[in-house]
Amino acid sequence: MGKKWVYRFTDLDEVESYVGGDWEGVRGLLGGKGANLAEMVRIGVPVPDGFVITTEACNEYLSLGERLPDGLWAQVLESLKAMEEETGKVFGDPHRPLLLSCRSGAKFSMPGMMDTVLNIGMNDATVEGLIETTGDPKVAYDLYRRLIQMFGSVVMHIPDEKFEEVITRTRISAGVKSDTEMQAEHWKGVTEEFKNIFRFHTHHHFPTEPYAQLQMATEAVFMSWNGKRAIDYRNAVGIPHDLGTAVNIVAMVYGNLGDDSGTGVALTRSGTTGAKQIEGDYLTNAQGEDVVAGIRMTRDLSDLQQEMPKVHAEFEHIAGLLENHYREMQDVEFTIENGKLWMLQTRDGKRTSQAAVRIAVDMAQEGLITKEEAIMRITPDMLDFFFHPQFDPEAIGAAAAENRQLAKGLNVSPGAAVGLVALDADLAETWGKEEGKKVIMIRPETRPDDVHGMLAAQGIVTSRGGRTSHAALVARQFGTPAVVGVDEMDIDLTRRQISVGDTIIKEGDCISVDGTSGEIYLGEIDTKEPDIKDKWLLTLLDWADQYRTLGVWANADYPVDASRAREYGAEGIGLCRTEHMFMESERLPFVQNMILAEMEVQRTEAIKKLLPYQREDFTGLFRTMNGLPVVIRLIDPPLHEFLPDHISLMRDLADLKIQLQHAPSLEAIDDLLKQVREKEKVLRRVETLREDNPMLGLRGVRLGNHFPELPKMQVRAIIEAACLVTREGGDVQPEIMIPLTSHVNELKVQRQLLEDEARIVMEEQGIEINYKFGTMIEIPRAALTADQLAEFAEFFSFGTNDLTQTTYGISRDDAESGFLIEYMVHEILPENPFETIDYDGVGELMRIGVEKGRKTNPDIKLGICGEHGGEAKSIALCHELGLNYVSCSPFRVPLARLAAARASITAQP
Amino acid sequence: MGKKWVYRFTDLDEVESYVGGDWEGVRGLLGGKGANLAEMVRIGVPVPDGFVITTEACNEYLSLGERLPDGLWAQVLESLKAMEEETGKVFGDPHRPLLLSCRSGAKFSMPGMMDTVLNIGMNDATVEGLIETTGDPKVAYDLYRRLIQMFGSVVMHIPDEKFEEVITRTRISAGVKSDTEMQAEHWKGVTEEFKNIFRFHTHHHFPTEPYAQLQMATEAVFMSWNGKRAIDYRNAVGIPHDLGTAVNIVAMVYGNLGDDSGTGVALTRSGTTGAKQIEGDYLTNAQGEDVVAGIRMTRDLSDLQQEMPKVHAEFEHIAGLLENHYREMQDVEFTIENGKLWMLQTRDGKRTSQAAVRIAVDMAQEGLITKEEAIMRITPDMLDFFFHPQFDPEAIGAAAAENRQLAKGLNVSPGAAVGLVALDADLAETWGKEEGKKVIMIRPETRPDDVHGMLAAQGIVTSRGGRTSHAALVARQFGTPAVVGVDEMDIDLTRRQISVGDTIIKEGDCISVDGTSGEIYLGEIDTKEPDIKDKWLLTLLDWADQYRTLGVWANADYPVDASRAREYGAEGIGLCRTEHMFMESERLPFVQNMILAEMEVQRTEAIKKLLPYQREDFTGLFRTMNGLPVVIRLIDPPLHEFLPDHISLMRDLADLKIQLQHAPSLEAIDDLLKQVREKEKVLRRVETLREDNPMLGLRGVRLGNHFPELPKMQVRAIIEAACLVTREGGDVQPEIMIPLTSHVNELKVQRQLLEDEARIVMEEQGIEINYKFGTMIEIPRAALTADQLAEFAEFFSFGTNDLTQTTYGISRDDAESGFLIEYMVHEILPENPFETIDYDGVGELMRIGVEKGRKTNPDIKLGICGEHGGEAKSIALCHELGLNYVSCSPFRVPLARLAAARASITAQP
Repeated sequence: MGKKWVYRFTDLDEVESYVGGDWEGVRGLLGGKGANLAEMVRIGVPVPDGFVITTEACNEYLSLGERLPDGLWAQVLESLKAMEEETGKVFGDPHRPLLLSCRSGAKFSMPGMMDTVLNIGMNDATVEGLIETTGDPKVAYDLYRRLIQMFGSVVMHIPDEKFEEVITRTRISAGVKSDTEMQAEHWKGVTEEFKNIFRFHTHHHFPTEPYAQLQMATEAVFMSWNGKRAIDYRNAVGIPHDLGTAVNIVAMVYGNLGDDSGTGVALTRSGTTGAKQIEGDYLTNAQGEDVVAGIRMTRDLSDLQQEMPKVHAEFEHIAGLLENHYREMQDVEFTIENGKLWMLQTRDGKRTSQAAVRIAVDMAQEGLITKEEAIMRITPDMLDFFFHPQFDPEAIGAAAAENRQLAKGLNVSPGAAVGLVALDADLAETWGKEEGKKVIMIRPETRPDDVHGMLAAQGIVTSRGGRTSHAALVARQFGTPAVVGVDEMDIDLTRRQISVGDTIIKEGDCISVDGTSGEIYLGEIDTKEPDIKDKWLLTLLDWADQYRTLGVWANADYPVDASRAREYGAEGIGLCRTEHMFMESERLPFVQNMILAEMEVQRTEAIKKLLPYQREDFTGLFRTMNGLPVVIRLIDPPLHEFLPDHISLMRDLADLKIQLQHAPSLEAIDDLLKQVREKEKVLRRVETLREDNPMLGLRGVRLGNHFPELPKMQVRAIIEAACLVTREGGDVQPEIMIPLTSHVNELKVQRQLLEDEARIVMEEQGIEINYKFGTMIEIPRAALTADQLAEFAEFFSFGTNDLTQTTYGISRDDAESGFLIEYMVHEILPENPFETIDYDGVGELMRIGVEKGRKTNPDIKLGICGEHGGEAKSIALCHELGLNYVSCSPFRVPLARLAAARASITAQP
Repeated sequence: MGKKWVYRFTDLDEVESYVGGDWEGVRGLLGGKGANLAEMVRIGVPVPDGFVITTEACNEYLSLGERLPDGLWAQVLESLKAMEEETGKVFGDPHRPLLLSCRSGAKFSMPGMMDTVLNIGMNDATVEGLIETTGDPKVAYDLYRRLIQMFGSVVMHIPDEKFEEVITRTRISAGVKSDTEMQAEHWKGVTEEFKNIFRFHTHHHFPTEPYAQLQMATEAVFMSWNGKRAIDYRNAVGIPHDLGTAVNIVAMVYGNLGDDSGTGVALTRSGTTGAKQIEGDYLTNAQGEDVVAGIRMTRDLSDLQQEMPKVHAEFEHIAGLLENHYREMQDVEFTIENGKLWMLQTRDGKRTSQAAVRIAVDMAQEGLITKEEAIMRITPDMLDFFFHPQFDPEAIGAAAAENRQLAKGLNVSPGAAVGLVALDADLAETWGKEEGKKVIMIRPETRPDDVHGMLAAQGIVTSRGGRTSHAALVARQFGTPAVVGVDEMDIDLTRRQISVGDTIIKEGDCISVDGTSGEIYLGEIDTKEPDIKDKWLLTLLDWADQYRTLGVWANADYPVDASRAREYGAEGIGLCRTEHMFMESERLPFVQNMILAEMEVQRTEAIKKLLPYQREDFTGLFRTMNGLPVVIRLIDPPLHEFLPDHISLMRDLADLKIQLQHAPSLEAIDDLLKQVREKEKVLRRVETLREDNPMLGLRGVRLGNHFPELPKMQVRAIIEAACLVTREGGDVQPEIMIPLTSHVNELKVQRQLLEDEARIVMEEQGIEINYKFGTMIEIPRAALTADQLAEFAEFFSFGTNDLTQTTYGISRDDAESGFLIEYMVHEILPENPFETIDYDGVGELMRIGVEKGRKTNPDIKLGICGEHGGEAKSIALCHELGLNYVSCSPFRVPLARLAAARASITAQP
């Protein structure tokens, strides 16, 4: 017996043993589509009968110089015979015609790249037989003309527009708008004209012999593997050229054979909420394309229960079979032919983030998948859904019903935004910032000059650009919902309006932008506040906590933030920035007095006034975080941040001097002169404090060493607060963090000073506080000399914001509205290093810091408190580096918990 | 036979065999002084006879509870007997008395910490005998009273002022001013009174028995090892406490026994010029202290040739012996006793830098030392002498003769400065900057607020502070001559004057400050321009070139600098900064037009206008550097540096608007309005270009990628110039350097762009230029990813200025007049990382960069072009890292050649 070139769908066992049991091998031999159909057959899903001509046959055919291998055709005929027995239909029989589809199907999906011929077996005889059997000449001629058209274009390479021209002409002369309105006589006439076109172009009659149709179609599919389009596609996507394609020969089934027929699509669970109920649409007496075309109103799948209860029950059974087998929610296409249900395709179903979470959790609870799998199915960005406002799905439905959907583009930054259209950045800024309006900024595309407007806008829309366009990057940067590349939108900057088709939107009109879906609607749509209490989400996060090894802490400066962080699952405060506390209006004067002080004693006095406030701040935090560690960073920013800026001072002074010239009285002059002197004093100090590069200037521990009274006051406040809360019965775990260390001596000197102060306070209070001392690693030199720093630190916290600035030599404030975005648009940088930790540079420094730090002190606690602590890829890096925890914004704590669990699961051997 | 506690100077062989041949051991046993005296004896130098009581004896004495070990005294007596035989004098004999000195001498020098007793052996009998023999009662009684005084204070701990009071009283009643004027009867009286003091304080008569004197003195020296002063000193300096001291017992010789006696000091070569001729001063019939006291005019040693020709000849012979033995120029003390020359001490002589170079080179040429030794004897900072102006030694001599020497302090920053005294920073700035005067700024001490004045001053003087004071650090920083810690100086800021003793210097008076010596003179002293052509220096540098493996290149932007660099021995240009070229007045308008251009075409036009200038710049450089590589860095600084600054623009605008209000005519108004519009345009652009941290902003390769036309123009200019000079027959080796790379893609994109341009130019010109492409490594990320960068670079140049700023997170411009100096004053930082490469941080990154770069491309050429390239310690690091070359300022090229040779020699196994 010769080589086996053909397998029936029922032959899967045989295929498996031939390829050695490996599913990759099965797909390699049968192609993806053939393998999946065979798989459905195996698990008992009703699939139209058929067989696969293997990829080996294709390769052999091509290597023989486009000649069918020996024995192939005999095997095809044999399989066809079996199909005839199975279906009770006969290929070429006019009364019970077996009609076939012939489709390509390679190992890897190459959508639209290769060829398909449907309705093989139709000819002058079968069309008549079919009319007789079904009594529906319209369907019969439609099937026949389709065969001629597809065969003509696919097998004989006749330009398809030749056929389409005929249909258009016929439709016009029939006075109908769509193909479905055409009647039998129209299709009959089209069929005749198609035969003539075929003859004219090929110099042959259309082959009416079914076996000839089948063989020519099969060879055409084989040859299509080496078609130019297919080769280009494989080159582009990186699919090898020697795989070949299989050919699937499948019995045609029809949903348009009467009221006991139908067709539809369904999801095995809700794609919106994830609820465990089948969701779908169907049409009776219709073909698949009718469901998609939307001309007839589709019916909800639940109606099928009344209409065809047995079919509905079978459908539910099949959905269960498929979910059990694929362990995923499925998106299926089906056809009912004279009361018989056939499944035509199944694949994993698309879903909202909310549904994804519920499905994953439900399936794990049903035992269908493991908890690890549930976790791995939810990517961290899916959690955005639960934290950004979204449009209310019902409101969306209503807007769609009112035809308010305007256009759709690329969904580049998620969330819902409603606002007035502003067509340039200046206007967006004026409306948004000065007038407090909600604004959607719309531009053909954006440039660095537009950033001020984008910052003031609720949402951003552009008519051009892609996922890495300037607008997309900036929007994601600032978490602003955005849709780009809306090319239906025509922006007229002269008339200050936008047109989409006939619809005109004027500047100042209200629109709603859904950055999650990419849809834009006219008017306002209600939004829904995010639901963090979603019970499936909470379950998933619980599971994540079981798998993660990385701690998740939060950055919080005030008790209210700390309390939210705890609620979201934070296990500590990884960064409390103390400088925000100084900015409050009742304290700022003392801070300014401290800075302006000319004498040591004035300075000390001003600092003393700040003590009670700071103590109160820390008391609140310690109470809220009772039992958990709180890392408090000592004052970090340069002093000039607490003073008015240079230019506004100069302006004020100029104004005062003009006023002086017009002063109405001596008293007024005295008063003005006093003000001038005050301003001049501040100005002088501002000038002294001015730095060319404040980012690299007198801040952090440098400031602490320059004005030791300041961090001493802070430590006193920390320890006094800790004693107070301890006395109340609280469990306080303060960790004092020194910022911006670059040389070990800075840390050594500062730590000594502060420990002395802490000791004094504890003695005054008669309470021993168990506090820790540590430093930020946010300067390259700190990472490079971490072995030295570890001598004087019980913990390190990587400040990856500043570490990225110094390691990359990039000033973030300047660059993110400047060349950095330009670099990403031109793909000079693959991603924004301020979003995702730069693995090769900053990541390498962190690795050095971790290694050297642990070398000196194996028990040193290592964390990260830059914004990267809430970003999934960066969290994976932190896991890889073996940090103890990440600390991020309270809102991102859930994401971090999930990402940490995924990193842990991924790293399992 | 018992243990040997005592060795004569002649017993050195025996000592060596006892300690195992090791000179450290000899010094350990005999102490430094004893070992050196024995060594002189061995090489045939006439040294007064004597012996050493070993450190072992001291330790044994102390451990026995201050009891002389058995056998010790017998050995002393035996050695004494030998001395008597050798000298022909007898200990205690009135007529030929052998007088002895008894001195401590530990292994390590502890100057002034331990005790000495001279003239042991004097008593009532020997004083009479001596008077008889010498006929000089004054000398005899002087010797006797000295013994009693020293013995009293050192051995019996009588306060020395008790003795000094007597001398003072006697001097007053004798009506003389100094001790030397006292006559025999005075000393006789003093001697008697001293005996009484001794008796009064000790309740014993002064011991007249010579052996008792000797033993008590010996024990006193032993005990002084454990004196408080000695212990404190050892603790401070880190000398172990168990070494013990040796005791040197030496025959006294006297230079004051008549006209055939004398005493003096000498250097075996000139300490000023290094010339090979003995230089010294002596006095006949005098004691050592008379030479130092300066009461009698000393005579030049050459006079001795007439006066005592034999002694002089012997002296020359001995100088040769000493130099041959010590292989160094010696500083000797000698005494001539009745025509017999005795050497009392020899040590390496102090010398000027110029002398050091000449002596090292001469000695190597004489075969006394090797060339390597000559190189290792000259530290790189000695070369400063040849490059800073110095005061003319003759003018200094004249000033000293005129008693114009005012005061002396710490010589913290070398060089000569003359100027008007300014007592505060503001005045120094006004005089120095605005009035163009030369200024010496004098302050009690300086603070960061004073830096602007220090920058404007020729020289800096402070009355307080040490070598690491703020003033010292800032002065060295800027290469300004400075003397600090001049505590004789009394600064009266109210009367605006300084007093030193009785001398008053008013603000505005002229003074001269010698930062090399620390001396300050009244009035102006002529300076001498440095002599780089010094033939010994040139020889030394030639030798350095033979030993160094590191190339020495120079940083030069103009042909005149390049030419100086070649003259000083540079082997290439390691950094030509092109931006300086843009600042020239005829070009700046084009640069500004380029920046202000609103349209692409305007920008391109402006850039084109710069091309001929740039081409001319490079042509000049290539001609000058014919045959050597020239590294040209493409434009680096942020654009705003080419525009007026923000604040001055705002001021100008305000002025213009005031002028507008008073404009005399419509024409004037038109003109003013035009100016306003121009200024406003510039102001807007300046505001757009403003960056919070320009150091980390849009510059370097970022600018090149932002405005590709600019580097393209530069490359065109480079290649066109290269073609031009090649056509002239020159050998051109351009290396194009891209600055501020932090990600490989920046380099890749920019290089591609520029190579395309270079190719076009070469095709236009029909000449193939062999150029290289490389990048600076001046951002931490560049070092960390050097393996990636090396794919696109044929050379790296470490830009350690910026690399230090980013690695340390320090903005140099801000910090060097701010907290960095504070950190050094408080010793938080051991040294300024902008002067010496930070070994642990920046050095570590360089190591990573070198390793990774060479891993990808073993042939990659590695250099450094930061200012560190001219600093000795940093050059040693570059050698250690295996760089190919250092590049530094042309003036520092000689220093770098020497430092590179020293690094190479030091690293030899």
